[in-house]
Amino acid sequence: MTRLLLTGATGFIGRQLVAALTPRVDVHAVGRRPAADGDGVRWHQADLLEPGAAAQLVQAVRPTHLVHLAWYAVPGRFWTAPENVAWVEATLALLRAFAAAGGGRAVLAGSCAEYDWDAGICREDTTPLRPSTLYGACKHAVDAIAERWHPADGLRIARARLFHLYGPHEHPDRLVASVIRGALAGEPVACTEGTQVRDFLHVGDAAAAIAAVALSDYEGAVNIGSGERSTLRTIVETTLAELGAPDAARFGARPTPAGDPPVLVPDVARLRETIGWVPSFTLASGLSDTVRWWRTAATEARRRPSPG
Amino acid sequence: MTRLLLTGATGFIGRQLVAALTPRVDVHAVGRRPAADGDGVRWHQADLLEPGAAAQLVQAVRPTHLVHLAWYAVPGRFWTAPENVAWVEATLALLRAFAAAGGGRAVLAGSCAEYDWDAGICREDTTPLRPSTLYGACKHAVDAIAERWHPADGLRIARARLFHLYGPHEHPDRLVASVIRGALAGEPVACTEGTQVRDFLHVGDAAAAIAAVALSDYEGAVNIGSGERSTLRTIVETTLAELGAPDAARFGARPTPAGDPPVLVPDVARLRETIGWVPSFTLASGLSDTVRWWRTAATEARRRPSPG
Repeated sequence: MTRLLLTGATGFIGRQLVAALTPRVDVHAVGRRPAADGDGVRWHQADLLEPGAAAQLVQAVRPTHLVHLAWYAVPGRFWTAPENVAWVEATLALLRAFAAAGGGRAVLAGSCAEYDWDAGICREDTTPLRPSTLYGACKHAVDAIAERWHPADGLRIARARLFHLYGPHEHPDRLVASVIRGALAGEPVACTEGTQVRDFLHVGDAAAAIAAVALSDYEGAVNIGSGERSTLRTIVETTLAELGAPDAARFGARPTPAGDPPVLVPDVARLRETIGWVPSFTLASGLSDTVRWWRTAATEARRRPSPG
Repeated sequence: MTRLLLTGATGFIGRQLVAALTPRVDVHAVGRRPAADGDGVRWHQADLLEPGAAAQLVQAVRPTHLVHLAWYAVPGRFWTAPENVAWVEATLALLRAFAAAGGGRAVLAGSCAEYDWDAGICREDTTPLRPSTLYGACKHAVDAIAERWHPADGLRIARARLFHLYGPHEHPDRLVASVIRGALAGEPVACTEGTQVRDFLHVGDAAAAIAAVALSDYEGAVNIGSGERSTLRTIVETTLAELGAPDAARFGARPTPAGDPPVLVPDVARLRETIGWVPSFTLASGLSDTVRWWRTAATEARRRPSPG
């Protein structure tokens, strides 16, 4: 049976990936904090930033598959966070240990931040990889090495380059979550002009795509995206319409961040044609699902007795 | 006083760099094997591939400057050697430890193998970085991270991209050394057609250039080269003329390796104008010096009593 070691299993994508993989795959999740086993998942406590931790873990688990999602991703900090340099070292050590323990299939979480942001539409093998940020440089460093490194015969590596995501359990400071929270609180939502073109993918679909890549034989880089291109303005307006607050947005109330590319979207031909995966959500249905999740979360928060 | 920690100090470039820096700089050299102090150099024994070794070393030495040359460079093996993945991790750990110990100035040894070899003439900021080899990918990984990483306030990093070298103590299997050895042995020298255009720099000049970069304030990438472009045929012919064996070459007797770029040379404007460094050898005088060194080495080898 497929025995898959998953890092970042408690994260935004990781928790959805557990749901996408179980019960057909024997999932071994690793996290820094202890957690109870359950629903086809065995939990392992380890800090992969500690020297030797990866080797010890894979020797104990002996996974056939590895999906490595754990990086430092705190909004507002991750672009420049030195923690991601440590994750480069940890990722290489993990991959080496996985290969040494007989692992056959690894999927590494890359990013749209690896591409030259002047390119607009990003294609895996032809768009220059020219990261603008330390985060992108760290992802790209692993990508460039993994493309040419064969730490063991028979180890097949795919590098999944993720674009923009939204959905349940998103960090409250990120775009879709913050728009929903603002509107649910009855506040006006300050936005940039919103002309930037992006590809927003529901996190459940992102997890499903990564699962499809992991269970395929594909070796190489693959963009993970919906194939649906929208302006940020459309994303905000669709979200607010779903919330019954169509006039809450204040476009232009915030400056567009310096260096924010006008167009940053994936070509998803490889994901669709080679991997054979298509999303289950449209932008509209995915945003609707997400608004529903936040409404439920808000209701549950009100039901809980306040502390103290 | 400048206290400079040098890795790779017993290597091809490293031994010349010791000579170029002493006595004006307090040089602390690190190697895996023990060595005696002398001539303004203090030797430290450490294996930087061991976790924690870099931190322990820089805490003991407290260097102001770091020149990091130690990578895996065995001819015939280094292009694909997995040891260089470990050197990526070791390099990042060393840089972090150096910054944490108060270091202010670091020079990292990069390579022409980081560039897109279809580019021909390589310029630091405009030629795409698209390594063809694992070696190039490893060097590029460090380069991409170091460009955007600020492990400590006031740490200034230069990335020295080395092109082709020759000179005393070169590995006997590399181009110029093998031509000289063959001719000194009275053998015909099998070569490719030799139409490839390269920039060959005397290793003493390479060390002098790295010393100039280390003692400058320049932050960023800088090509290290002579600025003199030659075909391999000219390099071989000049070497053989110096040896009095002008007819020893057999051009075309070996196939040109697949993927060997027709032109791979640096633009050295930045080295000349920003760093203000120019080479002391021409190709002819550098090859003459190198032939003299090999003749002396051969004479000394004959003088030594044979073992057993």
